Amino acid sequence: MTDSTLPTTGAPATPAPMRVVGLPLAHHDFVDKVKGTQLYAADWKLPGMLYGRVVRSVVPSARIRSVDTAEARALPGVIAVLTAADVPSNRIIERASGGLGELAVEMPVLAGDRVRFTGEPVALVAAVSQQIADEAAELVEVDYEELPGVFDPESALATDAPRVHDEGNVLVEWNIRRGDAEQALAEADLVVTGEYRSQHAEHAYLEPEAGVAWLDNGVLTIRVSTQVIEHAATISGILELPANKVRVISSYMGGGFGGKEDMTVEPYLALLVWHTKRPVRMIWDRQESMLASTKRHPFVMRYRTGVRSDGTIVAQDVDIVGDAGAYPYLSARVLFAGAALSCGPYRTPNASLRSRAVFTNNVPTSAFRGFGAMQVVLGYESQMDRVAAALGLPPAEVRRRNFLAKGDTIPTGESLDTAVASEETLRRALDRLGDPPAPSGPTKRVGRGFACNMQPYGRTIWFRDRASAWLSLQADGTLLIRSGITDLGAGQAASLCQIASEVLGVPLEEISVYIGDTALTPPAGGTYATRQLYMSGNAVLHAARQLRERLAPVAAAMLGCPADELSFTDGLVRGGPAGTGLRLAELVAGCERREVDTSVLAVWRAEQGAFDPVRGQGDSFPDYTYGTHATDVEVDIETGEVTVLRYVASHDVGRCINPMRVAGQIQGGAMQGLGYALMEDVVFEEGNAASTLFAHYFIPTAMDMPDVEVEIVESGEGKGPLNARGIGEPPIANTAAAVANAITAALGRRPTQLPMTPERVLELCPD
Amino acid sequence: MTDSTLPTTGAPATPAPMRVVGLPLAHHDFVDKVKGTQLYAADWKLPGMLYGRVVRSVVPSARIRSVDTAEARALPGVIAVLTAADVPSNRIIERASGGLGELAVEMPVLAGDRVRFTGEPVALVAAVSQQIADEAAELVEVDYEELPGVFDPESALATDAPRVHDEGNVLVEWNIRRGDAEQALAEADLVVTGEYRSQHAEHAYLEPEAGVAWLDNGVLTIRVSTQVIEHAATISGILELPANKVRVISSYMGGGFGGKEDMTVEPYLALLVWHTKRPVRMIWDRQESMLASTKRHPFVMRYRTGVRSDGTIVAQDVDIVGDAGAYPYLSARVLFAGAALSCGPYRTPNASLRSRAVFTNNVPTSAFRGFGAMQVVLGYESQMDRVAAALGLPPAEVRRRNFLAKGDTIPTGESLDTAVASEETLRRALDRLGDPPAPSGPTKRVGRGFACNMQPYGRTIWFRDRASAWLSLQADGTLLIRSGITDLGAGQAASLCQIASEVLGVPLEEISVYIGDTALTPPAGGTYATRQLYMSGNAVLHAARQLRERLAPVAAAMLGCPADELSFTDGLVRGGPAGTGLRLAELVAGCERREVDTSVLAVWRAEQGAFDPVRGQGDSFPDYTYGTHATDVEVDIETGEVTVLRYVASHDVGRCINPMRVAGQIQGGAMQGLGYALMEDVVFEEGNAASTLFAHYFIPTAMDMPDVEVEIVESGEGKGPLNARGIGEPPIANTAAAVANAITAALGRRPTQLPMTPERVLELCPD
Repeated sequence: MTDSTLPTTGAPATPAPMRVVGLPLAHHDFVDKVKGTQLYAADWKLPGMLYGRVVRSVVPSARIRSVDTAEARALPGVIAVLTAADVPSNRIIERASGGLGELAVEMPVLAGDRVRFTGEPVALVAAVSQQIADEAAELVEVDYEELPGVFDPESALATDAPRVHDEGNVLVEWNIRRGDAEQALAEADLVVTGEYRSQHAEHAYLEPEAGVAWLDNGVLTIRVSTQVIEHAATISGILELPANKVRVISSYMGGGFGGKEDMTVEPYLALLVWHTKRPVRMIWDRQESMLASTKRHPFVMRYRTGVRSDGTIVAQDVDIVGDAGAYPYLSARVLFAGAALSCGPYRTPNASLRSRAVFTNNVPTSAFRGFGAMQVVLGYESQMDRVAAALGLPPAEVRRRNFLAKGDTIPTGESLDTAVASEETLRRALDRLGDPPAPSGPTKRVGRGFACNMQPYGRTIWFRDRASAWLSLQADGTLLIRSGITDLGAGQAASLCQIASEVLGVPLEEISVYIGDTALTPPAGGTYATRQLYMSGNAVLHAARQLRERLAPVAAAMLGCPADELSFTDGLVRGGPAGTGLRLAELVAGCERREVDTSVLAVWRAEQGAFDPVRGQGDSFPDYTYGTHATDVEVDIETGEVTVLRYVASHDVGRCINPMRVAGQIQGGAMQGLGYALMEDVVFEEGNAASTLFAHYFIPTAMDMPDVEVEIVESGEGKGPLNARGIGEPPIANTAAAVANAITAALGRRPTQLPMTPERVLELCPD
Repeated sequence: MTDSTLPTTGAPATPAPMRVVGLPLAHHDFVDKVKGTQLYAADWKLPGMLYGRVVRSVVPSARIRSVDTAEARALPGVIAVLTAADVPSNRIIERASGGLGELAVEMPVLAGDRVRFTGEPVALVAAVSQQIADEAAELVEVDYEELPGVFDPESALATDAPRVHDEGNVLVEWNIRRGDAEQALAEADLVVTGEYRSQHAEHAYLEPEAGVAWLDNGVLTIRVSTQVIEHAATISGILELPANKVRVISSYMGGGFGGKEDMTVEPYLALLVWHTKRPVRMIWDRQESMLASTKRHPFVMRYRTGVRSDGTIVAQDVDIVGDAGAYPYLSARVLFAGAALSCGPYRTPNASLRSRAVFTNNVPTSAFRGFGAMQVVLGYESQMDRVAAALGLPPAEVRRRNFLAKGDTIPTGESLDTAVASEETLRRALDRLGDPPAPSGPTKRVGRGFACNMQPYGRTIWFRDRASAWLSLQADGTLLIRSGITDLGAGQAASLCQIASEVLGVPLEEISVYIGDTALTPPAGGTYATRQLYMSGNAVLHAARQLRERLAPVAAAMLGCPADELSFTDGLVRGGPAGTGLRLAELVAGCERREVDTSVLAVWRAEQGAFDPVRGQGDSFPDYTYGTHATDVEVDIETGEVTVLRYVASHDVGRCINPMRVAGQIQGGAMQGLGYALMEDVVFEEGNAASTLFAHYFIPTAMDMPDVEVEIVESGEGKGPLNARGIGEPPIANTAAAVANAITAALGRRPTQLPMTPERVLELCPD
């Protein structure tokens, strides 16, 4: 990272500066990570520990005639071989989408008489070493009667297509309608159409799926790399145990990106521990992870955009088909987000937005940073450039004429009650790019493109959401924070410390934070949907303010000044402008003498709404983060290779809690987005993933990446703590569209299928 | 355990029966312990873990000329060798006794220029294997200049005795005075004198001192077998770290008995981890544990008891000298309890009670089940039998004439505000014994003896005491309890579950309890002083009642009945006598809809008092547990061997939370007391412990033990939860006196020195 990547902050509406919040302070977990001493999920050995392995289907669609485990069981060192019959309640209960119309299809923990994708779990092995477990897995003989499969969602929509599930191949269909899109399109000055296709993508976290589980006084305890410790409830259901008998502990993670939002190793560890009564470790190696873990949904997106001759949008008709793979997972929600956000940050008075999640015999797809709202940016931002080209208007101007504003209503029918800072992010991104570059040679073409987006943060608000936090000021004035959040490596826990430090004046190094334990940390919900700064940040802010309110009268009495003149900074409470400082340790002692407890357990609840799936109208998300990415690319017209010369990413984060972490999220998101835009693709051949190693699935290395230049906007109007907005998912979303628009600018022809590999780009190049 | 050992409950004042409290329900941790799968403190392996070893002094008193670590450092595999110079703040800060007059003597973590007992830590080693660490410890060369030592406390009192510390040899002297003992003795009809001596005893827990420590994101984390996780604060002081940087986690323990109330391995683990930045494990083997761990105080007790001719006590003059060993530890408090309780459960209008804790160059003594109030039972109960013999009265009658009653004042000046059930326990114990046995042969003599006692529960009340607990009713109606207590194996955690189950009606198997973590469980104070049922039992009761009060209006609204008609049982809430039941899961859902949180964090504070050490008057303990042990013994007059034929132990527990656990405490206490009475002795030769293996230090085996028959009395007047009294320490206290009185009854001559080994008893036998 060079100097050029350091963010600059400040915007017209910049909120008032604070003492700790807003500073680029290092996470408390930096050192352990840099030195390699961070303990991850599998970094424990327990006495008598076994090693687990999942036996997986080698065919994408089949009836199982029999599973013969005799040979595997006979292998010395094998302690258990389990099949579907050994699972007390053999179904993974997906979190309900609120009864909003999707098929009631359940996934078994272990396949019984049917497999629906290559990699589906069929049996489990536990052995005294990993090598023996792996060997035993090979010895489990499954007799498959292969059945016809269906491998792309559009084929699966045909009435005569093989059925992935008896219930049908369409998991869910969402329809969001506002005004009369057909009529408006008919009356529009111009209608632009486009079809866009995205691919299966892999989360490709450094740390694969892993965990260790054991019995602790009858409590099944699972230490696992997960975004969601609340799956403990699902696990207790599978084992038919009361919920107090299952505990899930999350370690710090080596990446999640949504891939650890669903369960991974948990149910298999749980079954093996429950059957053997011994500790068990399970680590999916890279090949297993690539083969069987969930992927990002490929979308087929068809857009018809109607505009007036001045570029004003009058209607959008959008039809999205997403490949759900073989089981529901979170596809219903991903496709909702896709439809709900398919018009982007633009006023759209008439909209007909349809999305369908369709079963295939591919590996299941589910959550991945961006969650449906990301794929559609390629659609709406390609459309915006096409409109601009057709009307001969500058692309930025077309967007400016259509940007949403506070108070506007979006196609779901909800009204925006916070600032829309799209225009400011667009200005900052384009200003930073400055003059366009010249091509580096005669066979090179350069082009500039950009893409604006709006990405929700927080869960769909028709699910009641809440988070809690427990803060204790200790005898020496140091602070402990406990929260049930999981930390994906982005500093989720560190932000909580910075917020508490701001309110209570405890120096950051005197705060420790403990997270992610269903038994011992207060419930915070999972770390997904860019919800944790919003939810748990608010919970900690709320708890810290409650604690301060409790401390203030004691401090005021001790200092002999009014409580409203107190300041809490640098480990001191000061009374009045000239007042002497009271150390927090003294204040705690004063509280103890007065029987005032210095520990607060607080709950914070998010706003709630409702959505009517029949009318396609209602509330959707609590709020949105707006941003613009702009890039200059150079295309080699002899090879189709695309080089990203400059890349600027600008987002409004409302209030920046820590510019280093915001920049980290934005840079990481943009880089992951560039991999997605240019190279990443899980290629399937008749349901079998052909790319199950990094030798075949390319992710960008540091050498492939430009400096990502960051422009942080602070509108001061988010719904997170201190008016912050979430920044976890937003910065991955714009990238593919920005690059596609830049390639189009360079070549005059538009790529519409991801990834934009040299082979595909070469087809767009002049001969 | 035969049927004869099953307790019988019930007494005149028996409190009203309850649904869950009072039942003999198994602990949740039974199965893991019986199967050997319980994870103890050292049962973890972490990546890169090192093995620690303490280098200890081999002489009892010396100046250290030099410590040469070069050879140890040079041994391959040795990672660190530390000496005093490596300790940031080289002192173990004993918890202050409240400024009540003891010497301000501190113990170093590692000896600098002086050692004061054999076994004192001088250096530390960490290596890649235990074997290398042990070898390296042998290679550390300490050059000692030996100094004269003093090895018994009475010699140490001489003005010309070698000084263990420059400050003096008397750590503390307590004087409790009531009335005018000298005058009353002068006017008494009879004065009985006696001198009694007790020995060093070893805690002899199954699990020796052990722990594993590591750095977790900059937090020094110590998983250790300890009774007191709050030593985290001391450790942060030694390392000069803020308290948020140290976390102590207690595992379930294989015994504590007070021996894990002070720090054991913690400071050494902390130093080694802090210096190496790697995980470290330390286990003291049995020899090291016997050599260097704290012991029970040997007491020399001199009694003068004045009585009227009808047996009424008019005065006690007591002088106690306790061997504190080389450093203070908890000796000041142990000797306070010795003096304060030295008159037993008897009205004593005039008292002059002195106790002194005296430094020697023996191993330090500290807390051990009974804590000073235990040693003196041999004194006062021997005296009572001597009074009875001198007056020709039955021993029981003399006691009945003097038993304290509610409202009486004890020598410290405090008034008893709860029932004194001594007489009931005496009746029950003697009734159960029934007719005396006949000798089994001509060389055998039988005798019956008994001893009454009063033992405090809870800390001295001039230290502010409090405990907290956090209860969460989960979505499926199951309950989680979190408490900072440690569990010594006696079921401390299980009792909390039973209390919460009683209040909230959650079935016991649907409650899980998590304990002993300074970061993640609410502070409860250590498990010592028989305080945890009293303190944390009350905290959980308080929290459960708060939670029930929060739930009741919701349940009443859902059931349509008045809140005061609700009953909480069997996982159901019922409204009115004929009401249908509401499952707790439904109630939690109802609370969630109404935004009522089902999680309660509650603090419970004990009463507080003050003690004036100059006047020797004030408050001492919150309350007492009263009991009687009675036994029939047979003495072989040819060998001096004592066989315990029958043993009955009866205590008033106020309210019995779980008769199985109460019986377990009473039986365990009596058996540990029999070992103390008859065989256990850490023999010192010039400060060097001669018995550092179980081959030399005898503890009774199951074959040596009688059935201990238990009589539980429930007066219904304790200060613990639901009027319970503590039973952890009381049942060890009576044993030696009961056996001594029985031997006296058999032989007509009185043993006055413990243990009453065959050699000593033989000297009392007729030729």
